[in-house]
Amino acid sequence: MDDLLIGIDLGGTNLRVGAVTPQGEVLDIISEPFDAARGPQVGIDKICGIITALRDRTMGRGLRGIGIGATGPVVRERGVIQNPYTLPTWEDVDIVSPVCNRFSVPVNLENDADAAALGEYWMGAGRGLRRLAAVTVGTGIGTALILDGKVYRGAEGWHPEGGHMVIDPSGPACYCGSHGCWESLAAGPAIALQAQAVAAQEGGGMLRLTDGKLNLIDARILVKAARQGDPPARRLVEKISTYLGLGLVNICMLYFPDGIVLSGGVMRSYEVFAPGIQQVLAHHDAVVPMDKVKIVKTQIEGQSGVIGAARSVLNLIEEQAL
Amino acid sequence: MDDLLIGIDLGGTNLRVGAVTPQGEVLDIISEPFDAARGPQVGIDKICGIITALRDRTMGRGLRGIGIGATGPVVRERGVIQNPYTLPTWEDVDIVSPVCNRFSVPVNLENDADAAALGEYWMGAGRGLRRLAAVTVGTGIGTALILDGKVYRGAEGWHPEGGHMVIDPSGPACYCGSHGCWESLAAGPAIALQAQAVAAQEGGGMLRLTDGKLNLIDARILVKAARQGDPPARRLVEKISTYLGLGLVNICMLYFPDGIVLSGGVMRSYEVFAPGIQQVLAHHDAVVPMDKVKIVKTQIEGQSGVIGAARSVLNLIEEQAL
Repeated sequence: MDDLLIGIDLGGTNLRVGAVTPQGEVLDIISEPFDAARGPQVGIDKICGIITALRDRTMGRGLRGIGIGATGPVVRERGVIQNPYTLPTWEDVDIVSPVCNRFSVPVNLENDADAAALGEYWMGAGRGLRRLAAVTVGTGIGTALILDGKVYRGAEGWHPEGGHMVIDPSGPACYCGSHGCWESLAAGPAIALQAQAVAAQEGGGMLRLTDGKLNLIDARILVKAARQGDPPARRLVEKISTYLGLGLVNICMLYFPDGIVLSGGVMRSYEVFAPGIQQVLAHHDAVVPMDKVKIVKTQIEGQSGVIGAARSVLNLIEEQAL
Repeated sequence: MDDLLIGIDLGGTNLRVGAVTPQGEVLDIISEPFDAARGPQVGIDKICGIITALRDRTMGRGLRGIGIGATGPVVRERGVIQNPYTLPTWEDVDIVSPVCNRFSVPVNLENDADAAALGEYWMGAGRGLRRLAAVTVGTGIGTALILDGKVYRGAEGWHPEGGHMVIDPSGPACYCGSHGCWESLAAGPAIALQAQAVAAQEGGGMLRLTDGKLNLIDARILVKAARQGDPPARRLVEKISTYLGLGLVNICMLYFPDGIVLSGGVMRSYEVFAPGIQQVLAHHDAVVPMDKVKIVKTQIEGQSGVIGAARSVLNLIEEQAL
């Protein structure tokens, strides 16, 4: 019986490939650094090699399908990765055809935020929620919406980019064209910039943690200093929490989902930002009952992409059977 | 054959009841002022009286169903209007049961923004668009999302309130709890306040149009003065256009719909705001191709609510048949 799914999480620096059962159980996972700049041919060969290795390690299981969640933009319908930004040289790269030809099973390509959200719906903190929003706060802010277990897709299949909604037009410029989009205010690099500015002006705990080196201050240092009670760090955490909260308010106003799952590097420290986030949500509940929206932190960090990519090919197979 | 639908658009001051065919054609429409403060009993009797009159005027057609789009909040599942704000005394009013008992046909209650959006999808400027967002800019800003012809509903059936997403946290306070939500910056009353402030400070064309009466300056006066080339009015129109555009940017970032239909009193002057709106959208298209989203003005202003309410009961009948 063909009961082995492969889920692939292809990021800018890291590649994770998992062997997943049709019930969502991860049997095995291989994680390796990924150097996109070596070119698509090398990259795809590497991916195929790992798939073969995983298949051999889960002996006796037939391959049912392969799902690939890749850092976007991706053009899903054509199976093409269109991302020279975080995958240097990967412009207009058809990844589905060569993998499909090699293994002769259905192959599905998804935006990585959509794949991770599917993983949260299937096996994670958003399990079974009919309208599930997912927000990843890391190098950028990615968002996704899962409706009844299916990825919500925009016009022509485009992946909505909630991380670039405008939160504060007096904020910093972003490559998206805006000033003060969510990502420019509350993603990891934005937090680092603000923390460095605060430390440069007010000194204090953050600089002590980096032996005075301003450029080493990042979101992790900020969180650490805030946990130690450093007043400038705590004030900045409050400000960042407000930005994070305002973005979640807007997601609630437009999706009013049953739940929002938070993940990504910055959200590993969710507890530090949670009081400020909760306060903002509570302040905005006069027209919709914010307390109906479950805000939860991922419980499958690092695996949601792999699990969700595997699920995405199951969804594809189902759709094609209709 | 039962081929008559009744669509009702119940607003804070006006009641419109239409006789609509299953093909979306409006056969007849009765529009009357509505004084909610006389109480739900009087109001529901009036509505039933008009339905009877319309039925009599479209002789020979049997009634198939009645759809009611009411100014919200409404609790759709229970058929209850929960809106003492713009329908004084209408708190926890079951409108579906008495109408259903009187006419013995399926009756559906919708939020009025959802009903109007359905009307646009069925017979209006958003005809057939798979993902259709609708934005009404009038006394408030209401939003709705129609997916494959069905109203998108939030958790527990709540209607999302896109008009209260935060656009500029340095903006004015709103009853929703926020500072600088979309409605507080760009709805009719917000425009009037800003126009009055500009006129008080800079004088000019707006004051001339109201014979010097500051409190008579509203969005219509602003538009008129801007059309005449008054510089302060034109500057304010640019500012309001930016706010309108930023809200649309956020709708695109989260829904990325095939189209957005604009309606409501302020949007009757869409042409005046359009250049500024288009400029904002064009500035925010680096991560999603904004030109894929069709921005259109309603072509059935004043009828979309009635047509959509009629359609909503057709949808209900279909769902119940499944």
